[in-house]
Amino acid sequence: MSAEQRLKELGLTQLTASKPAGNYAAAVQTGNLLFLSGKAPQPIDGKPPKGKLGREYSAQDGRALARSACVELIAAIRQQLGSLDRVVQFVELHGSLNTVPEFEAHAEVLDGASDLLAEVFGPAGVHARSVVGVASLRNGVPLTLKAIVEVRQQ
Amino acid sequence: MSAEQRLKELGLTQLTASKPAGNYAAAVQTGNLLFLSGKAPQPIDGKPPKGKLGREYSAQDGRALARSACVELIAAIRQQLGSLDRVVQFVELHGSLNTVPEFEAHAEVLDGASDLLAEVFGPAGVHARSVVGVASLRNGVPLTLKAIVEVRQQ
Amino acid sequence: MSAEQRLKELGLTQLTASKPAGNYAAAVQTGNLLFLSGKAPQPIDGKPPKGKLGREYSAQDGRALARSACVELIAAIRQQLGSLDRVVQFVELHGSLNTVPEFEAHAEVLDGASDLLAEVFGPAGVHARSVVGVASLRNGVPLTLKAIVEVRQQ
Repeated sequence: MSAEQRLKELGLTQLTASKPAGNYAAAVQTGNLLFLSGKAPQPIDGKPPKGKLGREYSAQDGRALARSACVELIAAIRQQLGSLDRVVQFVELHGSLNTVPEFEAHAEVLDGASDLLAEVFGPAGVHARSVVGVASLRNGVPLTLKAIVEVRQQ
Repeated sequence: MSAEQRLKELGLTQLTASKPAGNYAAAVQTGNLLFLSGKAPQPIDGKPPKGKLGREYSAQDGRALARSACVELIAAIRQQLGSLDRVVQFVELHGSLNTVPEFEAHAEVLDGASDLLAEVFGPAGVHARSVVGVASLRNGVPLTLKAIVEVRQQ
Repeated sequence: MSAEQRLKELGLTQLTASKPAGNYAAAVQTGNLLFLSGKAPQPIDGKPPKGKLGREYSAQDGRALARSACVELIAAIRQQLGSLDRVVQFVELHGSLNTVPEFEAHAEVLDGASDLLAEVFGPAGVHARSVVGVASLRNGVPLTLKAIVEVRQQ
């Protein structure tokens, strides 16, 4: 099954890519590599989520927020490429979690994003990964994700 | 107008690349991609800026500091390539801001760097971007920038 | 002398790559670039190190911990490639240090890793580098390293 078909099965059909937060592009392609800008989770009831993991949000909340930011990444990839079926391999996923200094469940949180990539892209969704807990993020969002993806030419 | 010409118009003619802070290179090229090491803002009155955004420095200060660190990046690119006109595309810019945990104006600060890239490189300066607020940086500098740039062979 | 020979001289012969902490790969190759996932220092007396630089660990401790995490990176590269002699150039090393907000000795700490790369790979070990102090890391580890390496096809 193709990534576009899996997306439909997951009910993720109304993907609208959010706009960059400043003077930059959502993505830049060089050769076969597509570099994606950082993405925060989608708004809930029209409001962007705000708060820190380990204070406003639990690790379990974080999993859902990571999945949500990953949907944003996927929307950006789709907008850039026209179709997710042009993705050859997800190369790298980097997560920045807005945490209190004692937070330790980074791997659990990021799996919310990694699991979605596996569901949508199958083996092509398996990626190298890194995750850190940061002191602050723009507008107080609880996490951001960025990625590098290998794509085929049209 | 070429990037070298724009640099002159901006009065940025005396670019001296600062030395790496440890046992590493200012930049490494692989294929057409140039990976730049992290750069802090330029010294002010001979002293490297020191302090946190949201405490010693405002967001407006941060904009100027981001522009200053971006000048450092540009100097490193120029030293590596001989001329900025070998830059095909600025691919990715990543900012690490030394902030208090409540800081939220990351996008405003980074635009200080992104705006300079647009001024110097035009469309070739449009980049993917990510920014985080970190707990600390070497020698207490207020921010660092790193980048990946696509270059043409000489 | 080859990287494999230098590894032997350093007594680093029993390299066992640790497993990823979640649903991701230890490394992903795209073209000639190998992207490595984040690695923490090796266990000490069977236990993963835990604590912050500037509180539980000094800068000098940090140097040794960075060297240890770099051994983990090298083990992951070796497992992926079969032999370190397939490394053409170490491209980028990024360090995330789990620090108190006042920590400033990031460059000294990271040199623990950079020095090892120079010892093992010689000129091919010279890399672009960046390092930040983060608010938290998975399971409270004191630092993680990630890297991008240029490799030759088999």
